[in-house]
Amino acid sequence: MITILSGGTGTPKLIEGLRHLVRDEELTVIVNTADDIWWNGLYVSPDVDTVLYLFANILDTEKYWGIRGDTFYALKQLTRYDAEWTWFSIGDKDLATHIIRTYLLKKGLKLHEIVKYLSRKLGVKATILPMSNDRVETIVETDIGVMNIQEYLVKYRAEPEVYNVKFPGLERALPAPGVIDSIRNAEIIIIGPSNPINSIGPIINLKEVRETLRKTEVPIVAVSPIISGKPVSGPADKFMKALGYDPSPIGIVEIYKDFLDGIIIDVADKVYVEKIERKYGIKAKATNTIMLTLKDKVKLAEEVLDLAKSLK
Amino acid sequence: MITILSGGTGTPKLIEGLRHLVRDEELTVIVNTADDIWWNGLYVSPDVDTVLYLFANILDTEKYWGIRGDTFYALKQLTRYDAEWTWFSIGDKDLATHIIRTYLLKKGLKLHEIVKYLSRKLGVKATILPMSNDRVETIVETDIGVMNIQEYLVKYRAEPEVYNVKFPGLERALPAPGVIDSIRNAEIIIIGPSNPINSIGPIINLKEVRETLRKTEVPIVAVSPIISGKPVSGPADKFMKALGYDPSPIGIVEIYKDFLDGIIIDVADKVYVEKIERKYGIKAKATNTIMLTLKDKVKLAEEVLDLAKSLK
Repeated sequence: MITILSGGTGTPKLIEGLRHLVRDEELTVIVNTADDIWWNGLYVSPDVDTVLYLFANILDTEKYWGIRGDTFYALKQLTRYDAEWTWFSIGDKDLATHIIRTYLLKKGLKLHEIVKYLSRKLGVKATILPMSNDRVETIVETDIGVMNIQEYLVKYRAEPEVYNVKFPGLERALPAPGVIDSIRNAEIIIIGPSNPINSIGPIINLKEVRETLRKTEVPIVAVSPIISGKPVSGPADKFMKALGYDPSPIGIVEIYKDFLDGIIIDVADKVYVEKIERKYGIKAKATNTIMLTLKDKVKLAEEVLDLAKSLK
Repeated sequence: MITILSGGTGTPKLIEGLRHLVRDEELTVIVNTADDIWWNGLYVSPDVDTVLYLFANILDTEKYWGIRGDTFYALKQLTRYDAEWTWFSIGDKDLATHIIRTYLLKKGLKLHEIVKYLSRKLGVKATILPMSNDRVETIVETDIGVMNIQEYLVKYRAEPEVYNVKFPGLERALPAPGVIDSIRNAEIIIIGPSNPINSIGPIINLKEVRETLRKTEVPIVAVSPIISGKPVSGPADKFMKALGYDPSPIGIVEIYKDFLDGIIIDVADKVYVEKIERKYGIKAKATNTIMLTLKDKVKLAEEVLDLAKSLK
């Protein structure tokens, strides 16, 4: 059993690779829910849905969100009605997911039960766990004002300067049922190459999750999302700098050092291998981490599994 | 100013005709909301939307519900999720209407305010008024069980025998703001050829509406939806029989006799003209009431206006 901590883009690519090496049934993915939003009265869980659609083989793997080939007729009509947040594109089929999720939430089901329900309906064999059933938000303080993470990422295309990132609700949030057990019972724990601040950050900052990660004997390996000081996608560097971390594999290690056993960094950053191993006592391996082709993804997944196995 | 009482199919056809004789600005339509439903957490107002889309020139006039050329991708996905009531087809653009209406309801807006908002966004010049902002349901007692009106009409295609029709909430429901004034201030009041029991019935059985209709000096004319004992569409005859009315122009007159001044009946029923005039003192005119072409619709609308003017 492999447990993966995931956000919305980098980690799903790694998971695509893992799926060629390991059966879906052996994968458990704990997914960030701190960037969930209420969109015109519907509850949208972007990172969970990306992982869900990935395992259902319907993910739009051009964009890494939404359903492949989806249409946008409802969105167009909502724009005609001057609905809010129509810059946050939701396709017609994708909308169905948000409608049923919202309906089931109103009926009293918990988020993790709904994810399980949708997984079953979509034939997903992996276990997908929202990090928490409790509402956590991601608020970004920027040079043009304070805003929700989706406004920052989508509406403002991650362009404003970032001063701070806050997670209202995170302190009181509990891990969803299954999350702690999936960490305890894993043979390998993988922290995917997602933004360490706003994607992985909320998961590992759930109090019980952090404690369990610290205590567990299970090898924990991460893949650095930063290459030569820049993230492959998204604003991880801006967020890291805002919170005082160097946008480098060292910064990544600083964030995960409490519990990390090994890290894959990009060949471009191989100069850091020695420092990570010497200063932090964390095993580091430099390899290609840019996942353009399926071959890249499978290759990186192999490296991750090899590193983890070497740590047992 | 003309005020029309409307359900979802027959009356909208007559309105199409009226729009060729009178400017939209001069039309007020009071629409039945007793067949509104909650559909997977979304508030759907079928009769209101038909009238709304009609005046917005986007109504699917093959089916008399939904938006012309709409797609059904979200519905298909909801079916994959085993959502409830997926036999009640909602198109992708149509869905946008239900999403924003539900969102605005949750924000505290009243139904009539939302209809006004949607009317403005869709460029509707007529005044569309939901009969009430209060929740009224239509429950049909049949030989296969008790069910909601939409289940009866759509899921069971109006096939089961009808024993009774009930309107929980109707006794306490108040007319929406604007409804009473639109009756008082009209120059003509038209009761369209909709089902007198479950489409017009809930409107005229709002206590204040009935009282105002009784008192007003404004000529009130109806168009019979029954021809030779059968409705043009829908189960009006079954509903009328279940409540003890003859499915004929006489039955229609019996339902409206408290306030009716004139009625248009089909030529096929011209034998009833004399009886209606003699027994009820209600002016009756027999003409073609089947609206297949636009010409039929305009012609019938002319007859209605002529009859009403003759009663002033």
